[in-house]
Amino acid sequence: MENSVVVNKLVVIGVGLIGGSFSLDLKRAQLVRQVVGVGRSTANLERALQLKVIDAAATDTTKAVCDADMVFLAIPVGQMDTVLACIAPALPAHTLITDGGSTKGDVAQLYRKHLPDSLHRCQPAHPIAGSDLSGAAAARYGLYENKKVVLTPLAETTPETTAKVAALWQACGAEIIQMSPTEHDTIFAAVSHLPHVLAFTYMNTILARPDAATCLQLAGSGFRDFTRIAGSHPEMWRDIVLANRAPLLADLAAFKTQLEQMMLQLEAADANALEQAFLAASKVRSSWLR
Amino acid sequence: MENSVVVNKLVVIGVGLIGGSFSLDLKRAQLVRQVVGVGRSTANLERALQLKVIDAAATDTTKAVCDADMVFLAIPVGQMDTVLACIAPALPAHTLITDGGSTKGDVAQLYRKHLPDSLHRCQPAHPIAGSDLSGAAAARYGLYENKKVVLTPLAETTPETTAKVAALWQACGAEIIQMSPTEHDTIFAAVSHLPHVLAFTYMNTILARPDAATCLQLAGSGFRDFTRIAGSHPEMWRDIVLANRAPLLADLAAFKTQLEQMMLQLEAADANALEQAFLAASKVRSSWLR
Repeated sequence: MENSVVVNKLVVIGVGLIGGSFSLDLKRAQLVRQVVGVGRSTANLERALQLKVIDAAATDTTKAVCDADMVFLAIPVGQMDTVLACIAPALPAHTLITDGGSTKGDVAQLYRKHLPDSLHRCQPAHPIAGSDLSGAAAARYGLYENKKVVLTPLAETTPETTAKVAALWQACGAEIIQMSPTEHDTIFAAVSHLPHVLAFTYMNTILARPDAATCLQLAGSGFRDFTRIAGSHPEMWRDIVLANRAPLLADLAAFKTQLEQMMLQLEAADANALEQAFLAASKVRSSWLR
Repeated sequence: MENSVVVNKLVVIGVGLIGGSFSLDLKRAQLVRQVVGVGRSTANLERALQLKVIDAAATDTTKAVCDADMVFLAIPVGQMDTVLACIAPALPAHTLITDGGSTKGDVAQLYRKHLPDSLHRCQPAHPIAGSDLSGAAAARYGLYENKKVVLTPLAETTPETTAKVAALWQACGAEIIQMSPTEHDTIFAAVSHLPHVLAFTYMNTILARPDAATCLQLAGSGFRDFTRIAGSHPEMWRDIVLANRAPLLADLAAFKTQLEQMMLQLEAADANALEQAFLAASKVRSSWLR
């Protein structure tokens, strides 16, 4: 790792699973001299200090970023507008800005809105390491080992900015993938946002039953894994689905069409069609190695 | 464990995850003197012999059961009709008959059809230990440790029959729960069959996309867990959904209604309604301990 990659002062806004784990790995790799954590919850910041996830805590965002060399926005996408509005006037001219937002089209628009003259040093990113866990206590070393990080550079982002952000993620063990914000949002609507909405919806379908308690008592390992993501952070997921509404609605419609077809096959007791549908799904899932 | 629980000759029809693991645990607990495995695939039976899951293998079902003390039908529910028709004339008068079928209403009917004079010694059962794995190689010690086994006795099943089957499952570490076949099928449509159909349908929605390969490449841990059950055995699941069609169709309709409501909320960008829905699901899932 070249010395130019070392960050003097990294400000992590939102010290949870994503921001906290990034900080831990960079501190261990000695690629950052000081990490200042910023957040709304002082209890969470205190926990982050205790766990040495950050070196210092701040609640005044403007003050924290005024001498930052890099700012990592590790907050739900719904908070990006407010936070960018707050930090934009205070950012020094050299500061590199990146994020870990789960949607990228809306984040690109927000960089354009708040930092129109600084787009060369903005690098939107999305580490694929979500979890149903949240908060500083969820942060851990090695979270990004063998995980993918999608970088969606703006047209204005300089290759140096992209390279620096890429190098830091690679130091965390991640594999870098580059694509456009639109491509990113289309793909993640399908592989992440749709299953979350389905899992939330499924849980609520169970909860609406008069025998919900018995159902939960008898549910096994299939239920456990299928519903794990239904335990995800409600506010964060509200923001994500709203930020990626159009692709997600298209995917929901596609899913609904497939579901209606499956229901017709089941109504007709069409054993062959059902087996073919299950077989197609099962073959691909069984050969998918992760 | 009383001596009366020991089974001299146990015939396991279908030596896969469920039948094989039952055999392994009972052999280890010395509650069975000989286990004969019966199956359609000689390769699978040979593997079961190699792995000492069974003591002997047979392909002639009628011959295998003619001196059995207990028969365990560990086959997909769609095969029960044929297998019961085949063994019914050959069963000795004292043989206890049980199964591991994922649906219970249809299995109860099949016992009535094929063994009308032997219902006192039939004990329908459902061990809640499914997996996306199948075959003798998936069998393992301790699979049933702390798992639940639902017993759905017929009106004619004697308490002695139920007690013996319960004792064997308890020796495998399982907890016994007793209910009616109807109650069983209603609950498992909701907590098991519905999520399987949703997972299969979701996988097929992804596969129908032109960018399916990229989607699979970028999918993370949420996708992995949500789709695990889509890797399940297609033939077995075809049989289950057909056997439990009415309750499952009702659950699919209930899910579809909830999904349409969620889609309307997303279309309307109703942040509050979405957050409330996600919160309700997340709260219950996070407090559900398994």
